Amino acid sequence: MTPEEFRRTGHLLIDWLADFRTTLASRPVMSALEPGQFRERLPAAAPERGADLAELIAGLEAELVPGLSHFQHPRFFGYFPSNAELSSVLGDLLAAGLAQLGLNWQASPALTELEEQMCTWMRQLLGLPDEFEGVLQDTASTSSLLALLCARERTCGHAQARGGLQAEPAPLVVYVSSHSHSSVEKAALLAGFGRDNVRAIATDDDHALRVDALAEAIELDLAAGRRPCAVVATTGTTATTALDPIAAIAELAETHRLWLHVDAAMAGSAMILPECRFMWAGIERADSLVLNPHKWLGAVFDCSIFYVRDADHLIRVMSTNPSYLAIANDARAKNYRDWGIPLGRRFRALKLWFLLHAEGAEALRARLRRDLANARWLAEQIDAAPDWQRLAPVPLQTVCVRHLRPGLSPEQLDEHTLAWVGRINASGQAFLTPALLDGRWMVRVSIGALLTEREHVEQLWRLMQDSVAE
Amino acid sequence: MTPEEFRRTGHLLIDWLADFRTTLASRPVMSALEPGQFRERLPAAAPERGADLAELIAGLEAELVPGLSHFQHPRFFGYFPSNAELSSVLGDLLAAGLAQLGLNWQASPALTELEEQMCTWMRQLLGLPDEFEGVLQDTASTSSLLALLCARERTCGHAQARGGLQAEPAPLVVYVSSHSHSSVEKAALLAGFGRDNVRAIATDDDHALRVDALAEAIELDLAAGRRPCAVVATTGTTATTALDPIAAIAELAETHRLWLHVDAAMAGSAMILPECRFMWAGIERADSLVLNPHKWLGAVFDCSIFYVRDADHLIRVMSTNPSYLAIANDARAKNYRDWGIPLGRRFRALKLWFLLHAEGAEALRARLRRDLANARWLAEQIDAAPDWQRLAPVPLQTVCVRHLRPGLSPEQLDEHTLAWVGRINASGQAFLTPALLDGRWMVRVSIGALLTEREHVEQLWRLMQDSVAE
Repeated sequence: MTPEEFRRTGHLLIDWLADFRTTLASRPVMSALEPGQFRERLPAAAPERGADLAELIAGLEAELVPGLSHFQHPRFFGYFPSNAELSSVLGDLLAAGLAQLGLNWQASPALTELEEQMCTWMRQLLGLPDEFEGVLQDTASTSSLLALLCARERTCGHAQARGGLQAEPAPLVVYVSSHSHSSVEKAALLAGFGRDNVRAIATDDDHALRVDALAEAIELDLAAGRRPCAVVATTGTTATTALDPIAAIAELAETHRLWLHVDAAMAGSAMILPECRFMWAGIERADSLVLNPHKWLGAVFDCSIFYVRDADHLIRVMSTNPSYLAIANDARAKNYRDWGIPLGRRFRALKLWFLLHAEGAEALRARLRRDLANARWLAEQIDAAPDWQRLAPVPLQTVCVRHLRPGLSPEQLDEHTLAWVGRINASGQAFLTPALLDGRWMVRVSIGALLTEREHVEQLWRLMQDSVAE
Repeated sequence: MTPEEFRRTGHLLIDWLADFRTTLASRPVMSALEPGQFRERLPAAAPERGADLAELIAGLEAELVPGLSHFQHPRFFGYFPSNAELSSVLGDLLAAGLAQLGLNWQASPALTELEEQMCTWMRQLLGLPDEFEGVLQDTASTSSLLALLCARERTCGHAQARGGLQAEPAPLVVYVSSHSHSSVEKAALLAGFGRDNVRAIATDDDHALRVDALAEAIELDLAAGRRPCAVVATTGTTATTALDPIAAIAELAETHRLWLHVDAAMAGSAMILPECRFMWAGIERADSLVLNPHKWLGAVFDCSIFYVRDADHLIRVMSTNPSYLAIANDARAKNYRDWGIPLGRRFRALKLWFLLHAEGAEALRARLRRDLANARWLAEQIDAAPDWQRLAPVPLQTVCVRHLRPGLSPEQLDEHTLAWVGRINASGQAFLTPALLDGRWMVRVSIGALLTEREHVEQLWRLMQDSVAE
């Protein structure tokens, strides 16, 4: 494709996307296709001859859009916010067009140094201490894997340079909470610890990790000759946005030399609000933490920041250069390939730069405060309604709820819960995620799409009440 | 940013990128900045108030471009081709604008099923058998890590569900060639094998893995009570594009139940040419393979295809669902989160779709044949020039070369090599990567940028001759 064809087709696509975003609120929230329906309409083989993309773009509405689900819809209340501010979309377009490949500093000084600076800007906005150094990763799953690899190699004294985990005399153990995200256990399994060496620590009435239970588990492992290695605390768990007590966990981690990783993938964005920072008090004592600007903050996916206090250690674990110590963490010319798994790297910092430049920190804070207030409003309605039960504190933007009906057994209540949320989701009017809490179904209302205003939360509350009226 | 602001600013950015690509050939190939120079010009903190992106875009030429290096430049001959066809850039723009988050099938049926179909189209174009199932990853580094995790869990019977690598009675061993890409050893270390259990097998005169040496290494490990687990063969090594003998390696792998992973990251794209497929004869017996359409083929980074023969096994290794067997590889609704590390996934298939739709398979084949012919032409010039030495066969698009000067010691020859390539690179007229071959410096000429025509290779050859004339 020539630059002139790109210019012409690019304008078409920009217009198409502007129209698409304009009409988002009028679409069903989630795709109604059945498995296989999208694929069966695609050509069976790649075309031999090239064709004008203008035709493909003209057909997107009919061909592609029915297969899409809209996390950006103003009545999307599922999973967690997955915002994609249009300013950051333009940053991503610039990244694609420039096609930089940051495999080392020289391969794109701008890619490396803008990433460094964006991690610094974010660190300041979040109120984190200067000793945390940041790097952009694709997702929190990857960031948590990096954290556990760092933990593994610290505890075993860089055994990867020798016999690896295979030569260790006693098993290394990882502690998580029973409410940790599934990606944390996955990371531990991929890093080779084995499920037998991952402890799911019990939680308290607010679903936060119980420090006494953690201490007990560590003692049991020590007594059995095993080696405590890492603990993962969560600020804002997936199910209920529970807040693990970072400071108390850090105390234990320091005593036993555990690597403390904090998973703040969703809630970390809220730390641009000074009034929220009590939620991760003690964060300065973490060894690493992850937060995803591609969730609530508004950077288009993927943009996950992994902060680490001892960057030299991370580099030593991830570098393929046996002479790593000589080059470790050259502050003048970072090689971010040694800060993660991939060698080549996209110019992800551009989407964060465009987002922060176009929106500004003030507007981001105002938007997050709007969402917090909307969640509090919904919590108040639920608390005031006789047949509705709120199941967890609402420190952030997620409200966990059940509708009660007298005389139902626990099994019947589960059925009732799945029935009413199913009716809402099937309507296309809103989307909510059911989830298990202590073995029983409940419904999460996760607020925070860019377009979600109070009126949309009010609409949802009416939909919820209607859904149980039948 | 509103859709209307996006429309206005998006048109500006499309125009800027069209102009940027038009003027690419007139720019220095690589950035001439010193470390820190880019960053020091950036604001020290994020802006409090948002500002118009039009201003930022107007400043890109002066502020951003000096920090860029241009792998798309027609006289870029470094590393390997890293093409970014403008058609695929538009596919990536669509992905960013739609902001789908493919964390499961329901979260975006189109994302999942288009990815499935693009992997199928590519499989057909590459002449691979139907039993290979594909998934898009970010890079070959990640794909190779997945392969070694699959190997690890197959050999130890899914020990990750028990004590992990920590409970294994005897060490698992991985075999690579001494010319394997550094990412393969990195993957083995991250997967916990340990460097002591990674064997770098010797290569022959053409730098291809020696099967007799592999057989011997396996026997030695078996005799010592260790467990051979995986072998990684390369089609087109990084230094010289050497071709490991896949069929003979597969024979050994089957005998000893090794997982055979083929790293065809760069050269895999050439397999759209039937006349190249002899290079990976036996590929149908591999357990997994990786190729990167984001290299020579032209998809904008990142777009790496990981093909696996036993997808159920991959899912079992990567799934966080302990009841994975019940849901494994539902052909009706794939959940690609269980085919890799990240939970959320970008809509990467769009850039491959736009590339194949706009260019067509015929044109892609013609372009790759052009590059192969250009490499053969340069090899002929070198072979005919008295003081130049070609160091390896040229099956693909890379020519390895030294300039000889009578009477130089090996150390002096190294200095001479680094001096002449350094002069070319410093000129900004072309870029070449020096590399070590058998402990001595040589220069790789890697041909295959989209814009590189015969005239540019001729210009390079003149630059090379001029660079040694001093």
